[in-house]
Amino acid sequence: MRAIQWLHGHVMFIDQAALPHHERMLEIDTVDALVEAIHTLKIRGAPMLGAAGALGVALAVRQASSAGWTADQLATAVDRIRTARPTAVALAQGVDAVLPAIASSEDSAVEMAALAVVDEIADINRHIGLRGADYLGGSPEHRLRLHTHCHTGELACVEWGTALGIIRTLHERGHLAQVVVDETRPLLQGARLTAWELARNDIDFRLVCDGAGPFVIASGLVDAVVVGADRIAANGDVANKIGTYSLALAAHAAAIPFVVAAPESTIDPLTPDGASIPVEQRPESEISHIRGVDLAPAGTRAYNPAFDITPKHLVTAIVTERRVIAGDRPATTVAPRC
Amino acid sequence: MRAIQWLHGHVMFIDQAALPHHERMLEIDTVDALVEAIHTLKIRGAPMLGAAGALGVALAVRQASSAGWTADQLATAVDRIRTARPTAVALAQGVDAVLPAIASSEDSAVEMAALAVVDEIADINRHIGLRGADYLGGSPEHRLRLHTHCHTGELACVEWGTALGIIRTLHERGHLAQVVVDETRPLLQGARLTAWELARNDIDFRLVCDGAGPFVIASGLVDAVVVGADRIAANGDVANKIGTYSLALAAHAAAIPFVVAAPESTIDPLTPDGASIPVEQRPESEISHIRGVDLAPAGTRAYNPAFDITPKHLVTAIVTERRVIAGDRPATTVAPRC
Repeated sequence: MRAIQWLHGHVMFIDQAALPHHERMLEIDTVDALVEAIHTLKIRGAPMLGAAGALGVALAVRQASSAGWTADQLATAVDRIRTARPTAVALAQGVDAVLPAIASSEDSAVEMAALAVVDEIADINRHIGLRGADYLGGSPEHRLRLHTHCHTGELACVEWGTALGIIRTLHERGHLAQVVVDETRPLLQGARLTAWELARNDIDFRLVCDGAGPFVIASGLVDAVVVGADRIAANGDVANKIGTYSLALAAHAAAIPFVVAAPESTIDPLTPDGASIPVEQRPESEISHIRGVDLAPAGTRAYNPAFDITPKHLVTAIVTERRVIAGDRPATTVAPRC
Repeated sequence: MRAIQWLHGHVMFIDQAALPHHERMLEIDTVDALVEAIHTLKIRGAPMLGAAGALGVALAVRQASSAGWTADQLATAVDRIRTARPTAVALAQGVDAVLPAIASSEDSAVEMAALAVVDEIADINRHIGLRGADYLGGSPEHRLRLHTHCHTGELACVEWGTALGIIRTLHERGHLAQVVVDETRPLLQGARLTAWELARNDIDFRLVCDGAGPFVIASGLVDAVVVGADRIAANGDVANKIGTYSLALAAHAAAIPFVVAAPESTIDPLTPDGASIPVEQRPESEISHIRGVDLAPAGTRAYNPAFDITPKHLVTAIVTERRVIAGDRPATTVAPRC
């Protein structure tokens, strides 16, 4: 399944905010609607945001043409897409990859460039899955138990997935025993999206609350942790969904691998280290409420950082479409227990 | 406020499962109802369970008398109270403290013994608060920012609280700047109960999701972590609400104190270490739902350990009503930042 489509000049994708209970296809035909969908996490996941950025430029160009925008108005619209999420570098990269085509005299040049970006993202994810499955190994006799966080599947990645792509490749090979997935508060991408994709792929999994992840690891119930990344600094520090850092601490304490799966484009040479990565603060109401249910006393204030930083010394390996980058932590052998 | 009462032969307490939106007083007049309230966490918190155990024996004796139970039936009823939660040793201790009084010829002996247990628990909590506040220090010029987990306030402790009792004592002294509290999935005791008590006591606080706790600590936003305990093994390993272990890992990495506050009775000399502590597995539906809202796809399986084990080498100090036990981690000086 290609999880984002360009159809009759519109961008189409499943509304991730409505899953798992409603499978609703969104058809986006304005820059305003796309930016709103990005803000409200109807579309999310770093590679998917790259595709949305690329197709967003094509959308903006069509809208500029039909509405008679000036070049400045088009540039402003493109910039609004580009900056709709501050932490994910993939979004800006998707936009930037298509921008040169705007200068072309061919009417279809921007759309062709955008679709090429989407194809490339899909291809990258397949390669991450293969490379990561090779790295983690396992066998039909020694099937792996893996722990993951948030959602890194096809809905987040155009096709297949990054960390979840590795998991799916291992499952295809018969090398996977079980997946433990954190629910991933505040927006429950693990409980809603990863669980939905794992179930669709007939992969055995157990859901845990975020606080239980480190204890599950300490209890010897998983062989490795595999997560995605929203940005990787030049020194190897990793920004990923809030809650990732605690898994890295626990994996380190339990001496099991902590593996980060992400496209090369996630590595940002202009960001020297984790401290330089801007961490988006999201609305406090995401913490005081869950899916519309008020949890805390009225007036409760909250901190809501969307991401945390895992320092490079807790990372065993970073798997990209091209290579496995050894992290600062020794590459502990995966010791399968199933 | 005394959060549990013995009135006309009934046990009365606030229904913690209904907070923060409904302040409902429960009046319990049978062993069945008490055991049900314990199972469903309408009453919870280690010291509070001790009080419930003690008053539960008085309740059982009254019910035995009015219903004409045999000694065996009474013993069975008492044992059901005693074993209603497997991890919290305080419940059994509360029961056992009152049992000898059953042999007395005085009608009121059991009630008197039970009320004495409740008074003692309240007194113990006040002393933990004073001792812990002395240990953490702070001053009006250098007010402390503390991180806590789950709920350890007066509703959990008969009066005042353990970890939250230390926080309240520091607040009374003007030595407290702010509290960060984890929401504490699955049952959200932090968001519902701790937030409710902090707000009632005019203490400035911020709610965070459990996955954010370790990053808040790594970001330098708190000066120390203070939590309660459900059981402390003879070697110093600590069983507490699921999610505690990740805070201990993060406090260790950030070199800030990780302080456990609990009555002496929480220390179980018969349990050699954390691996010997039985960890209660609670219903999977607590993970797939939040307050009645279905979060995950239908049929999702979950792990739901109620507690985790923090190994002694991550503990800076255990504060009881009698002493401060230095843990294996060096007692880092609290460096207030406010």
